[in-house]
Amino acid sequence: MTNCEIISVGTEILLGNILNTDAQFLSEQLALMGINVLYQTTVGDNRRRLLEALNVASSRSDIIILSGGLGPTPDDLTKEVCCEFFSVDTYLDENSLAKIENYFKNKGMPMASSNKKQALLPVGSTVFHNSCGTAPGAAMEKDGKHILILPGPPGELKPMFFEYAVPYLSRFSDGVIVSHNIRTFGIGESQMAEKAGELLSLQNPTVAPYAKSGEALLRVTAKADSANQAEELMRPVIDEIKARLNKYIYGIDTSSIEEALVRILKEKHLKIATAESCTGGYIAKRITDIPGSSEVFECGIVSYANNIKESVLGVKHDTLEKFGAVSEAVAKQMAQGALSVSGADIAISITGISGPESDGSGQPVGLSYIGLAAKDGTWVIKYLTGKRKNSREYNRYVSGSNAINLAIKYLMGLI
Amino acid sequence: MTNCEIISVGTEILLGNILNTDAQFLSEQLALMGINVLYQTTVGDNRRRLLEALNVASSRSDIIILSGGLGPTPDDLTKEVCCEFFSVDTYLDENSLAKIENYFKNKGMPMASSNKKQALLPVGSTVFHNSCGTAPGAAMEKDGKHILILPGPPGELKPMFFEYAVPYLSRFSDGVIVSHNIRTFGIGESQMAEKAGELLSLQNPTVAPYAKSGEALLRVTAKADSANQAEELMRPVIDEIKARLNKYIYGIDTSSIEEALVRILKEKHLKIATAESCTGGYIAKRITDIPGSSEVFECGIVSYANNIKESVLGVKHDTLEKFGAVSEAVAKQMAQGALSVSGADIAISITGISGPESDGSGQPVGLSYIGLAAKDGTWVIKYLTGKRKNSREYNRYVSGSNAINLAIKYLMGLI
Repeated sequence: MTNCEIISVGTEILLGNILNTDAQFLSEQLALMGINVLYQTTVGDNRRRLLEALNVASSRSDIIILSGGLGPTPDDLTKEVCCEFFSVDTYLDENSLAKIENYFKNKGMPMASSNKKQALLPVGSTVFHNSCGTAPGAAMEKDGKHILILPGPPGELKPMFFEYAVPYLSRFSDGVIVSHNIRTFGIGESQMAEKAGELLSLQNPTVAPYAKSGEALLRVTAKADSANQAEELMRPVIDEIKARLNKYIYGIDTSSIEEALVRILKEKHLKIATAESCTGGYIAKRITDIPGSSEVFECGIVSYANNIKESVLGVKHDTLEKFGAVSEAVAKQMAQGALSVSGADIAISITGISGPESDGSGQPVGLSYIGLAAKDGTWVIKYLTGKRKNSREYNRYVSGSNAINLAIKYLMGLI
Repeated sequence: MTNCEIISVGTEILLGNILNTDAQFLSEQLALMGINVLYQTTVGDNRRRLLEALNVASSRSDIIILSGGLGPTPDDLTKEVCCEFFSVDTYLDENSLAKIENYFKNKGMPMASSNKKQALLPVGSTVFHNSCGTAPGAAMEKDGKHILILPGPPGELKPMFFEYAVPYLSRFSDGVIVSHNIRTFGIGESQMAEKAGELLSLQNPTVAPYAKSGEALLRVTAKADSANQAEELMRPVIDEIKARLNKYIYGIDTSSIEEALVRILKEKHLKIATAESCTGGYIAKRITDIPGSSEVFECGIVSYANNIKESVLGVKHDTLEKFGAVSEAVAKQMAQGALSVSGADIAISITGISGPESDGSGQPVGLSYIGLAAKDGTWVIKYLTGKRKNSREYNRYVSGSNAINLAIKYLMGLI
């Protein structure tokens, strides 16, 4: 099996200013290709120390993948140091220069002269074009050691990795590792792990529980010579998990609960509308994150102020006065109002207290009322986030997930 | 200045299963103490490779801080390998054992015999008790090299770092490092760097450019004996940057452009409303991310379907027919509609094509029209994202930032 080391270049990582998500992404992808990552190293924008890191890495790995330090400024020196390490020169790649010039032309912005430096590439290297930015990457080889250079911004690194690095690295790929994520909602991680029981001790495939942002998932992973063989290994285990966790599973390899909602709405040719108070548009944003959601998402009303709840959604003034904005009655009328304003098939609503401070009503931070209105009725559930009570982001995200889950349950005939 | 290296131990990091937030936390805290982190290394749960990482680290750093690998299972071997590296034995620390037993007693759970291993500590080490879990940490010293061992879970590492590592490391703390982030909008990173010019070559303070999600920022960092002295060093440089980049700067140390908008609305006692099509609630979500935004945010209308643009926002049917939904005229009427529906002081609107596919109109993905309506007039700008054209998330985020920026510019009297 081929060994690989990832070197992240950037003083901002060493200062803790940014989280190193590139190293995680690369590690995950290389694992899928069956390439062993034995070390990750982070080094600053410093010639001597980057050279030293390359020395150490090449003493223990066959492939070195660097990210970052390809920008136009003088402290960006990854390419230069890699050339020094392999004793090769750079040349001005006309093709890359034209792409950079074009990039600025499309933006209607002048190209700074410093950007020209980005088109300087190692002699004899394989050029990785950048479809999302100005810095090209490259792959270099010397005496059986391979160096891949990728840009730091994740939005540039990821597409370049898939487009260029994966084909380049495929020669080292030793068997495959395939994973499936079984995603659940409404069950805690330890409860889920208990139901999975002895499956968690399997060796191939492995079954591992994870918890994140109010959800729990089981990751099933198999190693085999081919993807097909890996799938064969996993099938009976996944079937068993489905049988044990059935009513909690909203999707397998679904990227999110909102994606599951959009999929089921499409299948049923139904449209949804939202009425949000405490989540402030977060639910609408998450639904419309999904490409093609315009087929199923009709409209969202962010009725942050009480007078908007009345004027746009038709919530009764008396109800607001009597029960307060964060109440079952208001959630109900908000959902009914959104249904009627939009003409959609179902509408979900939410009103709650996201924090960090309470609203003065004496009700706790993290409380929300979630409504659902459809032609056959209206439902309201009460939800209180159990932990990280004072995290506004967490409360908004998780209470939103509960609203989305309520819609899924309705569409599946489970409420 | 004392040099430090962080070693994260855990195969799950090398597989990309988890994001290495410990390294960021430690780096950030050490920078604040004036301790230089020159390298971060990640290594798996493997004796030989961890020994090798310790060898490399001790050749270039005076302090090595390890996190992870202190659990009760056989693959947890950080302490054992550090003892091997320094050639010292372990002893059973009765005090730590009592704490571990107590931890399980408090939880009403039996203690597994494997947990006893966690009370084995290096002879002669300084013990770091764990107030949030079972694994104690430790600090070891030999020939002027210091090794600190901390648990992996962030919820255990952070309190132990503050309680034990900070006092232990204070002898190496060499002054303080203070940073300020000068945030700009509407100027590219290289153009900004060109305007900063020779300031980028300063040594103390340093000035470094960064680009992220359509924004560029300059980070000014000074090292000094005290925070006050660091501020003194930075003041003239920050003033000079302000003079050069004035109209692009929306905030210093502001966490986001939406925070800048909420702040300026509060200062002026004004309220805002939004009307979103392509961003689907993302702008409302970002504004309401800011605690206290209810003072300034009135409502948001996510008019995804054309009939909602007509029925809720009063966009004219003829205008939609004649110019299409993604047009200057529709953006204008959406903003005016949101102003009138909400009764807010200003309203911003957006209609565009977020992708990944176009809408069949022949207009490009990434195009948007952004409107602003207020009592004294209505403005519309056209915006086309220059890169990552096919990234829906990027298009939605950056076009939303442009809408927020338009509101800031209006409120500052710059349009």
